[in-house]
Amino acid sequence: MENDHLSKKILKMVKKAKLASRRVSLIETSVKNEALKQMASALLQRSTYLIKENTKDVNEARRQGYAAALIDRLTLNEKRVKDMAQCLIDTATLPDPVGEQIKVFKRPNGLLIKKVRTPIGVIGIIYESRPNVTSDCIGLCLKAGNAVILKGGKEAIHSNLAIFSVVKDVLKSTKIPVDAIQLLPSAGRQALKIFLKQDQYVDVVIPRGGEGLIRFVTEHSHIPVVKHYKGVCHTYVSDHADIKMAFDICYNAKVQRPGVCNAMETMLVHHKIAARFLPDMISKFMDAGVEIRGCPVTRKIIKKGIKKASRQDWSEEYLDLILSVKVVDDLQGAIDHINTYGSRHSDAIVTRDKKEAEEFLRSVDSACLYVNASTRFTDGYQYGFGAEVGISTDKLHARGPMALEELTTYKYEVYGTGQIRE
Amino acid sequence: MENDHLSKKILKMVKKAKLASRRVSLIETSVKNEALKQMASALLQRSTYLIKENTKDVNEARRQGYAAALIDRLTLNEKRVKDMAQCLIDTATLPDPVGEQIKVFKRPNGLLIKKVRTPIGVIGIIYESRPNVTSDCIGLCLKAGNAVILKGGKEAIHSNLAIFSVVKDVLKSTKIPVDAIQLLPSAGRQALKIFLKQDQYVDVVIPRGGEGLIRFVTEHSHIPVVKHYKGVCHTYVSDHADIKMAFDICYNAKVQRPGVCNAMETMLVHHKIAARFLPDMISKFMDAGVEIRGCPVTRKIIKKGIKKASRQDWSEEYLDLILSVKVVDDLQGAIDHINTYGSRHSDAIVTRDKKEAEEFLRSVDSACLYVNASTRFTDGYQYGFGAEVGISTDKLHARGPMALEELTTYKYEVYGTGQIRE
Repeated sequence: MENDHLSKKILKMVKKAKLASRRVSLIETSVKNEALKQMASALLQRSTYLIKENTKDVNEARRQGYAAALIDRLTLNEKRVKDMAQCLIDTATLPDPVGEQIKVFKRPNGLLIKKVRTPIGVIGIIYESRPNVTSDCIGLCLKAGNAVILKGGKEAIHSNLAIFSVVKDVLKSTKIPVDAIQLLPSAGRQALKIFLKQDQYVDVVIPRGGEGLIRFVTEHSHIPVVKHYKGVCHTYVSDHADIKMAFDICYNAKVQRPGVCNAMETMLVHHKIAARFLPDMISKFMDAGVEIRGCPVTRKIIKKGIKKASRQDWSEEYLDLILSVKVVDDLQGAIDHINTYGSRHSDAIVTRDKKEAEEFLRSVDSACLYVNASTRFTDGYQYGFGAEVGISTDKLHARGPMALEELTTYKYEVYGTGQIRE
Repeated sequence: MENDHLSKKILKMVKKAKLASRRVSLIETSVKNEALKQMASALLQRSTYLIKENTKDVNEARRQGYAAALIDRLTLNEKRVKDMAQCLIDTATLPDPVGEQIKVFKRPNGLLIKKVRTPIGVIGIIYESRPNVTSDCIGLCLKAGNAVILKGGKEAIHSNLAIFSVVKDVLKSTKIPVDAIQLLPSAGRQALKIFLKQDQYVDVVIPRGGEGLIRFVTEHSHIPVVKHYKGVCHTYVSDHADIKMAFDICYNAKVQRPGVCNAMETMLVHHKIAARFLPDMISKFMDAGVEIRGCPVTRKIIKKGIKKASRQDWSEEYLDLILSVKVVDDLQGAIDHINTYGSRHSDAIVTRDKKEAEEFLRSVDSACLYVNASTRFTDGYQYGFGAEVGISTDKLHARGPMALEELTTYKYEVYGTGQIRE
């Protein structure tokens, strides 16, 4: 598509979305919930069609020789379509955040000030591979009273178009304007570049993905960005740890589902406990097929089967059965390592020492910190927030699981009786 | 300064600030408060020096023929130095936001989740003219546990350097690292451009200023931005207004202090009330020296002394005794005008009709909305928040008065007893 033509098309899209967002912001909860439930039904009804369209993407990915993990994330089947529908139903049952009074206070001059939760406006979501993100995010954004513009990866183009068309059809018979949901033309990065300049019409853009995507969005966006970056998650096993508990937590954090952002990528171990803890732990990991990349001390303790960890390993999100292991001098060594190489996502300490735990919680600069629990709990459902658009690794506006509440902003509504400034 | 040399210098600055921010985040409240009070004393003691340095800026501004309003904003005197000291003392007496438990909840699996307020890290503040911003923002950022990097305008360079050096001297005798406050070299936009790429070290940048500055920062920043943009504030006088109240509110909003961002710039009037309201109101404005720029209907009602409002006028922040006036068809006309031409800052309605007021509050997309009160109340002190770094016109992270709480973020601290994901 020619650049100028593409620009005009995108400008038209975002203007329509902005107008639609004003209408969505005023729609009653029951209407939004009903629409979400109808979308769920439609996805189930059109399941065969969705899977057929998805097969085109999967076949193409196979032809291109994509990794098995990516093909798995891309694939839709009956179960996954059911999960997508369920996510919409769950979102419908969550309380509506719009209109919530966050704070109400009265000033000495009689002014009554209400801090009230309101929709953000137009939300852009840029994501890769998983097609379920399309319907999940449409449901969450609409429920929070926003319009949403989606841009999926080109590897999932047929799947995303199919899901989008099914869901959009439902909107036609509701009070929600169809322009409230839009799909950005998948003309690669060119369309994205133009889109990211539309700060007059788009209020926030949420990129979910790896280094390349996040960097591109950060560099080109004039729209405020809430990044959902990689998870380089750590577990630090203190010399005050309950060894049995450390075993279970580390194993769970690495092995239970290695392909997700809250899985552990680096295990840090206090030097005093390393010789006692590491041999059994690493042998258990190896039995599960985990490849270990260790620091020099680790490789002294375990002589066989451990690769050398490079500096690059400490900031690597493997998303796979690979684990880097480092022996540290003390708590401060662990904190410094995480603050230097981590991605500010989720990190855990295993310790029986409460003071040490508090020090870890205060000093590690990450969204979600755990004492004696697996990093795998960083998740909207696990926190009781319901569905989420993802995990924010940013510090502004939203940090950690980004669910309905984080898809809103607030305004101050001030009630007077003629007050003026002296 | 050569570009490469400047880049290295700025990189060194931001790295130091990042390291310092980790230490500031852990400093006890009493130490921070004591430091702020000492800064206040030092400013008062060095008052003569500060005013002498400021005179250099003021003289230069006069030589350059700057507007009287700008020279007024730039000028320091005994009273204004006292106000600066008082702002630091006020900030010291405010509760420390760091460590506040925003929410505490327990999950069915026994996990105890605390959402805890924490410092943001390194905050960049880009501002123009007023030298008091230097000490106000240093006080607020330190109190909230952050490091701060300041970039004032070149017109205030001597004043800012003087204030900064007095305050920095105080830090040397406290536990707060001196690197926690830094002044960006005033090598014009070149330094700013380099600074805005340091997203690895700087967590947020807050530009306070006009169109040019805000546009520059938005376009060049890789760091998250919270914009403090102009205030194109409206008052809508409904046909259900108490006329006497509308008089007082509109007069106050325009005349009491026209040079600030929460002053009214456009008055909207319902057509049914225009002929009754406008003649007296406008004559009162004219008596106060206000220049009126009216829409065609306004100019039909008031035949003399009213300039024609151009389309440009509707989005103009005059910061002066100038007012644009428009007669609208109804509430929806007022809402549409504000959402189209406003700057999402502060807008008011004068009405006795509660339903109409609610409609206005829900539909106008601005940070602070008033029913029967002057827009001039948008201010951290007036809201009871204490001092503020400014008024955010953005929707993400902070909206409206940005005070101590808005200079923090949060993290989730999760306490387990060995929980793992099934």
